[in-house]
Amino acid sequence: MRLISEHHLDDGLLERRLTVGDVPAILWTAATSPVPAPLLLLGHPGGLDAMYPRLAGRARHYVTYGFAAAAVETPGAGDRPRSAAAERARADLRRALAAGEPVAEIVDRLVLPLVEAAVPEHQAALDALLTLPEIGGPVGTDGGVISVGIRLAAVEPRVRAAVLYAGSLIPAAIVDEARSVTVPVQMLLQWDDEWNDRGQALDVYDALGSREKTLHANLGGHTGVPEFELDAAARFFARHLT
Amino acid sequence: MRLISEHHLDDGLLERRLTVGDVPAILWTAATSPVPAPLLLLGHPGGLDAMYPRLAGRARHYVTYGFAAAAVETPGAGDRPRSAAAERARADLRRALAAGEPVAEIVDRLVLPLVEAAVPEHQAALDALLTLPEIGGPVGTDGGVISVGIRLAAVEPRVRAAVLYAGSLIPAAIVDEARSVTVPVQMLLQWDDEWNDRGQALDVYDALGSREKTLHANLGGHTGVPEFELDAAARFFARHLT
Repeated sequence: MRLISEHHLDDGLLERRLTVGDVPAILWTAATSPVPAPLLLLGHPGGLDAMYPRLAGRARHYVTYGFAAAAVETPGAGDRPRSAAAERARADLRRALAAGEPVAEIVDRLVLPLVEAAVPEHQAALDALLTLPEIGGPVGTDGGVISVGIRLAAVEPRVRAAVLYAGSLIPAAIVDEARSVTVPVQMLLQWDDEWNDRGQALDVYDALGSREKTLHANLGGHTGVPEFELDAAARFFARHLT
Repeated sequence: MRLISEHHLDDGLLERRLTVGDVPAILWTAATSPVPAPLLLLGHPGGLDAMYPRLAGRARHYVTYGFAAAAVETPGAGDRPRSAAAERARADLRRALAAGEPVAEIVDRLVLPLVEAAVPEHQAALDALLTLPEIGGPVGTDGGVISVGIRLAAVEPRVRAAVLYAGSLIPAAIVDEARSVTVPVQMLLQWDDEWNDRGQALDVYDALGSREKTLHANLGGHTGVPEFELDAAARFFARHLT
């Protein structure tokens, strides 16, 4: 892990730009914290700089609740090398969705390699971040690509709670993996999501193996998650990580 | 409104047994409150005495959040005169559900008269309770028979927020009324509810006309609503009533 830059923001927030191996990441912590903080991995579609305002807002919120928060760059996004196969799959997906054609094979081609690449990178980031004295674990995952969130919750024992953003463009193999998730899950579903099928998203909730799983559905489109859900997520993590 | 008894409970909670007309009710308030409190109507299936431990627990919780809470006896329940037609409909419903027969006509016979009787009684209770200086309105409704909750939210302008417990044994006319509800709604759904059809319950959520409506689904059977939902409900009411 290499420190690239360090900024003291207002409200006693410390922001560090890092790389873990070749992977850029941002870490937000309280500038002074009396006890090691549990860590939340903030998911996102990719592109740390483009997503920065929203990520920093979520991080700031979670730090006030006593957490540390980190975002790790997605494979093939931001300044990272592009994958020609992923770009092709993305174009194919757009075309198939617009034409109303089946997408399962394309979703597999797009999402499975992303999961295979992203999950070990997140685990390496955990290895590095958890060496910092101000971070104590356990770990929660918050949103981002749901297939990555499901795989992390299924295979990474340091992850003890997961907030998932519901979707339907999920490989069948990952829906199967959801059955082996046992940590508490809170899933957010946008009722009128223009990019995802509601019934299939409800099937993913149904598939999750967790004994405690809560679905929060709200009216509105894909990007319309209400402000108050951030508060609900912080309370969920506080229940399970502190 | 007639005061029957008054008890100071621990934690500065004042419990009053009342009648409004012929209808028994219980009111819980803080023993001393600096400002008039918004009022929550606590719904229940009927039988104030049988339901007392759970109602008092909910009331205690809400009072700590700065609310007053009241429960009004259901028509035909507790010490109130029984309705022969309702008893017959209830027996018919049990039989039809056990036999897997259609229930829509029986649900109409059972629920519509209950709504017709209960809603004006709740409105009369509001008229009386809102004269007390320690209660200031606005009003929220919390759970109970969902058809009563929907009608109250649709017709009573003092009701400004509603927590509904999802169900499917709802007259079609009441599902239609749900379209005219505009106040914020939080709906609780038990994913494995043994008495209600999940798809129909989701259709009721879909029908609600409110611009802000949130569905909280949790794993488990009809009576298994997790403890933390009481906290989520209090925060929902605090957002909209205070």
